[in-house]
Amino acid sequence: MTIRLKKNATKEDKQKIFDVLKENGFGYVEAPGETANLICIMGEETEKMELLELLESFPGVESVNPVNDPYRLVSRRLYPEMNGKTRIIDVDGVKIGTEKPIVIAGPCTIYSLEQALEVAESVKKSRADFFRGGIFKPRTSPYDFQGLGREGLWILGEVKKQTAMPIVTEVMDTRDVELVAEYADILQIGARNMQNHTLLHEAGKQKKPVMLKRHPYSSLQEWLCSAEHIAREGNLNIILCERGIRTSTNGEYDRNTLDLGVIPGAREKSILPIIVDPSHGTGFKKLVPSAAKSALEYGAHGLMIEVMRDNEEPLINCGNKKVPYCDYKQGLTASEFDALCKEIKK
Amino acid sequence: MTIRLKKNATKEDKQKIFDVLKENGFGYVEAPGETANLICIMGEETEKMELLELLESFPGVESVNPVNDPYRLVSRRLYPEMNGKTRIIDVDGVKIGTEKPIVIAGPCTIYSLEQALEVAESVKKSRADFFRGGIFKPRTSPYDFQGLGREGLWILGEVKKQTAMPIVTEVMDTRDVELVAEYADILQIGARNMQNHTLLHEAGKQKKPVMLKRHPYSSLQEWLCSAEHIAREGNLNIILCERGIRTSTNGEYDRNTLDLGVIPGAREKSILPIIVDPSHGTGFKKLVPSAAKSALEYGAHGLMIEVMRDNEEPLINCGNKKVPYCDYKQGLTASEFDALCKEIKK
Amino acid sequence: MTIRLKKNATKEDKQKIFDVLKENGFGYVEAPGETANLICIMGEETEKMELLELLESFPGVESVNPVNDPYRLVSRRLYPEMNGKTRIIDVDGVKIGTEKPIVIAGPCTIYSLEQALEVAESVKKSRADFFRGGIFKPRTSPYDFQGLGREGLWILGEVKKQTAMPIVTEVMDTRDVELVAEYADILQIGARNMQNHTLLHEAGKQKKPVMLKRHPYSSLQEWLCSAEHIAREGNLNIILCERGIRTSTNGEYDRNTLDLGVIPGAREKSILPIIVDPSHGTGFKKLVPSAAKSALEYGAHGLMIEVMRDNEEPLINCGNKKVPYCDYKQGLTASEFDALCKEIKK
Amino acid sequence: MTIRLKKNATKEDKQKIFDVLKENGFGYVEAPGETANLICIMGEETEKMELLELLESFPGVESVNPVNDPYRLVSRRLYPEMNGKTRIIDVDGVKIGTEKPIVIAGPCTIYSLEQALEVAESVKKSRADFFRGGIFKPRTSPYDFQGLGREGLWILGEVKKQTAMPIVTEVMDTRDVELVAEYADILQIGARNMQNHTLLHEAGKQKKPVMLKRHPYSSLQEWLCSAEHIAREGNLNIILCERGIRTSTNGEYDRNTLDLGVIPGAREKSILPIIVDPSHGTGFKKLVPSAAKSALEYGAHGLMIEVMRDNEEPLINCGNKKVPYCDYKQGLTASEFDALCKEIKK
Repeated sequence: MTIRLKKNATKEDKQKIFDVLKENGFGYVEAPGETANLICIMGEETEKMELLELLESFPGVESVNPVNDPYRLVSRRLYPEMNGKTRIIDVDGVKIGTEKPIVIAGPCTIYSLEQALEVAESVKKSRADFFRGGIFKPRTSPYDFQGLGREGLWILGEVKKQTAMPIVTEVMDTRDVELVAEYADILQIGARNMQNHTLLHEAGKQKKPVMLKRHPYSSLQEWLCSAEHIAREGNLNIILCERGIRTSTNGEYDRNTLDLGVIPGAREKSILPIIVDPSHGTGFKKLVPSAAKSALEYGAHGLMIEVMRDNEEPLINCGNKKVPYCDYKQGLTASEFDALCKEIKK
Repeated sequence: MTIRLKKNATKEDKQKIFDVLKENGFGYVEAPGETANLICIMGEETEKMELLELLESFPGVESVNPVNDPYRLVSRRLYPEMNGKTRIIDVDGVKIGTEKPIVIAGPCTIYSLEQALEVAESVKKSRADFFRGGIFKPRTSPYDFQGLGREGLWILGEVKKQTAMPIVTEVMDTRDVELVAEYADILQIGARNMQNHTLLHEAGKQKKPVMLKRHPYSSLQEWLCSAEHIAREGNLNIILCERGIRTSTNGEYDRNTLDLGVIPGAREKSILPIIVDPSHGTGFKKLVPSAAKSALEYGAHGLMIEVMRDNEEPLINCGNKKVPYCDYKQGLTASEFDALCKEIKK
Repeated sequence: MTIRLKKNATKEDKQKIFDVLKENGFGYVEAPGETANLICIMGEETEKMELLELLESFPGVESVNPVNDPYRLVSRRLYPEMNGKTRIIDVDGVKIGTEKPIVIAGPCTIYSLEQALEVAESVKKSRADFFRGGIFKPRTSPYDFQGLGREGLWILGEVKKQTAMPIVTEVMDTRDVELVAEYADILQIGARNMQNHTLLHEAGKQKKPVMLKRHPYSSLQEWLCSAEHIAREGNLNIILCERGIRTSTNGEYDRNTLDLGVIPGAREKSILPIIVDPSHGTGFKKLVPSAAKSALEYGAHGLMIEVMRDNEEPLINCGNKKVPYCDYKQGLTASEFDALCKEIKK
Repeated sequence: MTIRLKKNATKEDKQKIFDVLKENGFGYVEAPGETANLICIMGEETEKMELLELLESFPGVESVNPVNDPYRLVSRRLYPEMNGKTRIIDVDGVKIGTEKPIVIAGPCTIYSLEQALEVAESVKKSRADFFRGGIFKPRTSPYDFQGLGREGLWILGEVKKQTAMPIVTEVMDTRDVELVAEYADILQIGARNMQNHTLLHEAGKQKKPVMLKRHPYSSLQEWLCSAEHIAREGNLNIILCERGIRTSTNGEYDRNTLDLGVIPGAREKSILPIIVDPSHGTGFKKLVPSAAKSALEYGAHGLMIEVMRDNEEPLINCGNKKVPYCDYKQGLTASEFDALCKEIKK
């Protein structure tokens, strides 16, 4: 259940409500930022429901809203005044959630400043809106390259300084969130960590927008619940990112099945913008252009695409050694990406 | 293993090969129609492989091809001379398998001549290439309407006579195949019967092309093996039709997950054309236009779309009673279909 | 909706009901055999529901039962008088559906009389209740051995004559059902044909019990609907057979995932007995004993186990050639089967 | 690739090897504890493989083992000397990994000392080996009770003091691992965090054994890779816990499908013991006894079972309020658990 306050509700009005809730053993959460006139109540399925309805007559209360979805602050049902529109998230002037799709592009993994800069410059020329690059890489096997880690974060700073592109990068450890937030314009939570609640909470405490990737086996409801874990901590600037689900076909002709149907599904259930990662979503570069254009056809608010340098080799320099380039098969070259961007802009 | 004969191979050349195969306990199958210069051998994994290689020196033999895929006649690997092109199937002058997508349209189920004719005329105006309509309906529950059955076949004849549209319709029983082939220009095998081998064999004996829908849980390999069951009986005019797979998301925001990735997958593995059914593939009419356009983006050779009359009601007249319109939620109205066709033609 | 007649309802009582139903455009089906006092009505979701309720006051009518499950005759909800018990199916004196589990055993495929007889004699010694053996084999690839076909049916007759064991065998073609029913004591419908409705209907017209295997992707509801397709034709002697479902784990350490949870699920929803095939259900002989014992732990009414001769080779004599033994990896040898039977009997 | 040192290898021998690896740009990891004579090398797929083979001639080196599995220290292939046996993990004298199955029992969630103590005493009487109880609860919706958190840890201390039972409890946050390790005898990593790598690494640095639950969509290989993430940090005392996978049947008659086939699968691929959680694995208490006994039939080294007090209500006291009892439908009562234990001990 959710309480919506009047615009002119006073601190005292609020305090009275909190007092009644506490006395009666209800937990509650104040919605963040511009939704600060919302109070979400916990545990209400169980008791004293009548009492909650009484709150409607309290001073400062506009309505008591029976939204009992397991997610609330991110739910479209809570915002009838938005008339089906998407929440627009403004990052350094780039607006995510409008009819104009945004493009995030860059390498899966950053191996060196030189590599990062070259890709950043090329995707900038192709008019990508954000640079992405992995510094922390959650690899299934511990014997695969796990990213440069904290010592590599400066590269992101340097790329931003030299190209003026805003940065998207993944964070994996609660203890790194604040530090990464200094370098990133959008904090990425990866698919494997979609239900790492303590990480979600930490991201929710930051001022930076969060991009939440969907776990390949997650339902839409589970995904939106994870977004709610972020929102409840005070951060409603969340961008959903579909990246393919696991189905019985994977391994035969794709790596994941891109679930395009979730785009209109998410737009109907939630106010959050949703973008698509056709690189992970298919696993093969030859499928990326069709997947990218189809995602926009289904109403995606943007794309996140893996791009490497033209002539990138399967082994790449990293410090004093060569390591296998992560997800080599799914990355577009700079030229292929440029061609795709031109098609999309039409 | 497959034996490819020279163009000038004589009957006697062939007979010698057959004799050797029989003597040594090998089964074999002669490929149909224009591929009649191919002989597929069975059981070869097991014995006397050396003997088969010897056949290369027989008169009339061009090559012995070690294609040991569980499917062969429909496999691209058997036809290097096609250079990646698709087998073109010509139905009454409409060519399936070219870069120009074809459109099959009509109601899920035929309930009366009046209904069938009205839809046929409207989809003809929108420039659909084929009329589809179900006379035999495989419904999960026996208490749902199972179609008009044999007594309804005349309606298809009447529609064709009045509109001159070629007809696509499903056949479910081996005993009906010949009869249905008199009315249909393309015989449809439904998803539930994708591995009904005796039905596949019967369809393979007909002269009419066969459209083979994919079972929602079928791998590409299983699907192509089912196509091979048809081809081996002498009919290589097979059109694949993707219609959505079952995944863990179904029920939340879609009925099936349209597997667009299978389109390039099938084009790579097989010479057969592949079309897409976005109506079953999504289960909701609001998703059909995006799904249809995306299918073409991925390289589909055509679309099969469910269309009903404008103002069709959830209950429809059928003989002297009203029955629930099958799959009502996924059918486009005539006007919606017309709008989609205009978009696609661009 | 279902009408239950009084025991003393007359022909005239029935006819009056049928007349009213027909006049009002309702289809109906008389339940078979000992359930002949039940009439299932079709199409009732749509209209004139009040009329149906009026039937309760007709002579000969005991009650009008609002069982609107997509399956009815096989539904437990229709038989409150059974108090949760299972329908017992008596085959030649062997009772299926009691607390004493039955065992069906024999080779996946019959290749010769000699092979069939040897296995039949060994499983008889181990006290199996039925002999199974495939004469018609639905193989995914048409290049794999498809069974001896009609010409092999006499072998089943001979096995029965010499061992007096009742026979279970698969039928695939509607046109073969009557013929196979002459040799089989239980007609098996395979997983691939679970939704081959015309085959289900033909089986429903026979006097012999039918064993209906579950498709590896079928829900319980779809499975029971397929059983209902049989029951509606007049044959309620149906035995369900679970044989493993397809999941994301298959291929790594099993071939299918045996779904033991469906056993109590089916017993709750339906009156039909349910047995388990641990051979297909796991795909590897080393897993068969654990799977078999666990199935009984979960309440299965019996087991169907693939058994081959001791020292069977991967290639087996068939007519004048050798062919690969089908599903070789999952068959127990006669000795292994004997050991398992002794454990189970405890 | 893995280097196995001789028992009498000296520090200098080791250092020489490390020097060569470093010079040539290889990462490496020393295996923990009793496996300290193993060195795992990273990045070796890429270069200078010949060099690695040369290491075989270095002093102190017994063999260079080409185990290139994505997991190594937990892989059975690395330990031929174990002859198929399981690694035995000794916790306070209770041995996990022998033929005698261990039992972990207790409530899903701890709500109060009183509740925890009552359950602990009852399961102790039934001869459970460990007490389990959740203090940190990763709930999908943030509006569900998330456990008592850090302030509740003392309850575990008190339970241990009063009952002398060793404790199993979940940890979710890297920052809590050390603290929780003070109270827990086995650290549980939950399914949602199976690929939370930073949590795995933190757990790997502790001296306490770790129980790693399988994500409901994880392959065996992904699961063992997660175990390897723990092992590589120095902790090979890992217990696998199967808790059901997500399949297309869930929701119809179960909540998850218990994947019993993974038990022999894991025993074959890894040296780690594996236990089963039949409570989450099925989701319904009526299925728990069959599931528990079947798990042992398949070779599980133990069980983790949710137990609540007799007469536990769906709402439970927690501080000054009542909250819904988490996973109420799957918990056995103390009496039901006692009955099951008696059956199992037979």
